Amino acid sequence: MLQIVGIGPGEKKHWTYAAYEAIAGAELIVGYRTYLALVKPYFPEKTYLESGMRDEEARCRAAITEAAAGKKVVLVCSGDSGIYGLASLVYELLAEMGEELEVAVIPGVTAALSGSALLGAPVAHDSCLISLSDQMTPWETIEKRLIAAATGDFVIALYNPSSHERPEHLKRACELLLRYRSPETVCGIAAKIGRDGEWAKVLTLQELRDAEVDMQTTVFIGNSETKEWDGKMVTPRGYFSK
Amino acid sequence: MLQIVGIGPGEKKHWTYAAYEAIAGAELIVGYRTYLALVKPYFPEKTYLESGMRDEEARCRAAITEAAAGKKVVLVCSGDSGIYGLASLVYELLAEMGEELEVAVIPGVTAALSGSALLGAPVAHDSCLISLSDQMTPWETIEKRLIAAATGDFVIALYNPSSHERPEHLKRACELLLRYRSPETVCGIAAKIGRDGEWAKVLTLQELRDAEVDMQTTVFIGNSETKEWDGKMVTPRGYFSK
Repeated sequence: MLQIVGIGPGEKKHWTYAAYEAIAGAELIVGYRTYLALVKPYFPEKTYLESGMRDEEARCRAAITEAAAGKKVVLVCSGDSGIYGLASLVYELLAEMGEELEVAVIPGVTAALSGSALLGAPVAHDSCLISLSDQMTPWETIEKRLIAAATGDFVIALYNPSSHERPEHLKRACELLLRYRSPETVCGIAAKIGRDGEWAKVLTLQELRDAEVDMQTTVFIGNSETKEWDGKMVTPRGYFSK
Repeated sequence: MLQIVGIGPGEKKHWTYAAYEAIAGAELIVGYRTYLALVKPYFPEKTYLESGMRDEEARCRAAITEAAAGKKVVLVCSGDSGIYGLASLVYELLAEMGEELEVAVIPGVTAALSGSALLGAPVAHDSCLISLSDQMTPWETIEKRLIAAATGDFVIALYNPSSHERPEHLKRACELLLRYRSPETVCGIAAKIGRDGEWAKVLTLQELRDAEVDMQTTVFIGNSETKEWDGKMVTPRGYFSK
């Protein structure tokens, strides 16, 4: 059996009980080494199969092969196991390999939720989750989605807003959004969520355009109703505008 | 101190440790009675303040008042505390009341994640979360967002797809989406997630238009790449189309 487990942003406090129990019952724990480093302190005696950042396919194939051989395998994802996680790739590989396997997907707290909680309550109404990584999605598709999200007046959570290889992505996204949304739109940055050095900051879309962020950051763009109150970023549900 | 806690879809296995600890340390637990029924079995000795379904504002005011008086109060939400939860309303009320209060938002597994896990991995790529409830959002705004989500080729998770008072909302939404998306678009229904009688079903957008759903259901519309494999709804991440 293969269980694909989302452990949330980091610290055990954001794990679900189902995530803990799946890992506790596993014979082999597979994952990216940075995420496994969050798991090992609780299960030092377990067997681990670590891989590097870009080895997702090999990681999933190894997990499938070991599970098909009869082991209880857990594949660890940070955040949720589905949203930009590995559940989808496992199902794709199973279809390709013609492998029949019992698979369970254990959801976890994704950064749109944990970052939102840290900032206040920005993702409180209709929202879009968009990754700015163009590794597997053409930049034109990302731009099309940014424009759709802007015209639909959604709250937007941006995953992978920047990296060493593409430091300009957030700036390009903000410049595009600024064609449709006010420069005063309330935005937020949440970084190292649930880990040492966690921080959050509220700022305007204009300011966000020139902000420096890294891969450990999730960025939030408010809708036209989003406010800053006392340092918190809050999107009203509409109770007072009925 | 007031903690706003998301407990996920239902059973304790989807609670986070932070959610459990917040409730365990509370002197007063406030919430909608259906959600409190999920909490009470674990904390039968605690003090509860229950309210009915449409009493969100009164519920939040009571929680604020008790916390301001010095009690450790937990306000329980199903799913996440932010996404269509009460965190935003609490901050709005604090701004209105001019009350200063230490507030913590504890995120939880929202239905877009738990329903996705049950169906396979539909919400694996860029996605939109849209509520079909027009209690506080004009239907025209909901339609605008549905069109934006369809033109952006997002995976869509629909919250509150139907109710006794508005049985036609899902059909109207599907008819709108069918103008932009293929009738063969892979869709999914997840119901009573994490509770007794949980079920999930994969079907086409054409079939979804005539499906009967209730308030305990979350509906998923795939993007143009979403597949059905062996009864599972899966949106590829793009590993095989690079």
